[in-house]
Amino acid sequence: MMKSYKGIISYDGTRYLGWQKTKEGASIQESLEQALFKITGEKGPIEAASRTDRGVHAEGQVIQFRSAGKNLLRAFNALLPPDIRLIQLEEKEFHPTLDAALKEYRYRLCLSPVQEPIYRLYSWHCHTPLNLNRMKQAAQDFLGTHDFTAFANEPEKNTVCTIEKIEFTEPSLGRLQIAISGNRFLYKMVRNITGTLLYIGCGKLPENSIPFLLASRDRKLAGVTAPAHGLFLHKVHYDRMVL
Amino acid sequence: MMKSYKGIISYDGTRYLGWQKTKEGASIQESLEQALFKITGEKGPIEAASRTDRGVHAEGQVIQFRSAGKNLLRAFNALLPPDIRLIQLEEKEFHPTLDAALKEYRYRLCLSPVQEPIYRLYSWHCHTPLNLNRMKQAAQDFLGTHDFTAFANEPEKNTVCTIEKIEFTEPSLGRLQIAISGNRFLYKMVRNITGTLLYIGCGKLPENSIPFLLASRDRKLAGVTAPAHGLFLHKVHYDRMVL
Repeated sequence: MMKSYKGIISYDGTRYLGWQKTKEGASIQESLEQALFKITGEKGPIEAASRTDRGVHAEGQVIQFRSAGKNLLRAFNALLPPDIRLIQLEEKEFHPTLDAALKEYRYRLCLSPVQEPIYRLYSWHCHTPLNLNRMKQAAQDFLGTHDFTAFANEPEKNTVCTIEKIEFTEPSLGRLQIAISGNRFLYKMVRNITGTLLYIGCGKLPENSIPFLLASRDRKLAGVTAPAHGLFLHKVHYDRMVL
Repeated sequence: MMKSYKGIISYDGTRYLGWQKTKEGASIQESLEQALFKITGEKGPIEAASRTDRGVHAEGQVIQFRSAGKNLLRAFNALLPPDIRLIQLEEKEFHPTLDAALKEYRYRLCLSPVQEPIYRLYSWHCHTPLNLNRMKQAAQDFLGTHDFTAFANEPEKNTVCTIEKIEFTEPSLGRLQIAISGNRFLYKMVRNITGTLLYIGCGKLPENSIPFLLASRDRKLAGVTAPAHGLFLHKVHYDRMVL
């Protein structure tokens, strides 16, 4: 009997073209669907909460699929490549994108003059001195509901998003993590927010420029798109109460 | 004019046969000496505080070499492969091994049922449930000066070492780090201490077995050699006062 499953997966996005299946190369979706096919002969589809981009990592991507298979958690991890793991699996009827209430991304940076090699594939190295207080102050202006056209790399119909949290943590010397939670994100929005905060941190943009940039709806005025390899899809909440 | 330099290097040991130059493949030492040769035409040698083994990583390996070159820090990082970085460089006359007073290694483990992919090359995955309190208790018996023959994978003349610190930290859910400091370490000794503590944690060896194992001087009685990819040479102290 076919059952609907909710899975939490974690992946090192380094060698993938992104979540979505494409004829041009390896994708997370295809790797998962191939594993499911090997286990059960079923073709999926396997859908995700977020279509992460080329090179973006995930610690808590959520997937949904239907299967009649058994012992799927163990079987997936035996057949998936080592850079994709199925962390949890439960039977659940839900829609992976429409039911998602809140997504948390984490962007990781190295601010030391020289980056530790083991982080080179998992954090953006910025050796320009940054004023973190300016960045933290400016980040507050993203909170709430705004039109984020100036922070989207492609035109979209609905450009209104709500940002609920932007948190800075410094897990160790020279390392910085920016955690951003919101109800929805436009194309490359987290990376554009991060790049803009960095421009503010190094003085390329004034501290109070966020309200102006949001109002401008002009992508060209905001900061650079931060590279993919510093970005992690950390968690997807389906229950509004959990934040 | 030739000057003596002390450098701190950090590396991802995954694709290397270890510190020491060998005809069989890539080594950290050879990569550094090649970079020095490209910069200055000088052939080294470049010596290290610790000859880390195949697959072992380093966050604070210390190197020593002589050179007449200038702007060496920048030049090394421009020419080294991205998995080796020169973090610091200063002029200093010293002997990298004989003057080393204390070395700190860190062994990292993942204790979750499924390991996060981004840690797969940097921590040992142990999904057997462990009793951490038993391990912490037993670890105290390593402290002080002992004959560590039972924890060495090759015969050595001087088998007496002093362990100054063994510290357990849990940086996040399901992750464990064991930091071990001592004046000297025998071949694979940190990995044998770690493997033995794991045997105690999962009940394969009794909690009070360390004094008995040390006294036995018999490698076969102690636990497994933990794999290389969880081990980091964290720091080498040249000043006795800094601990």
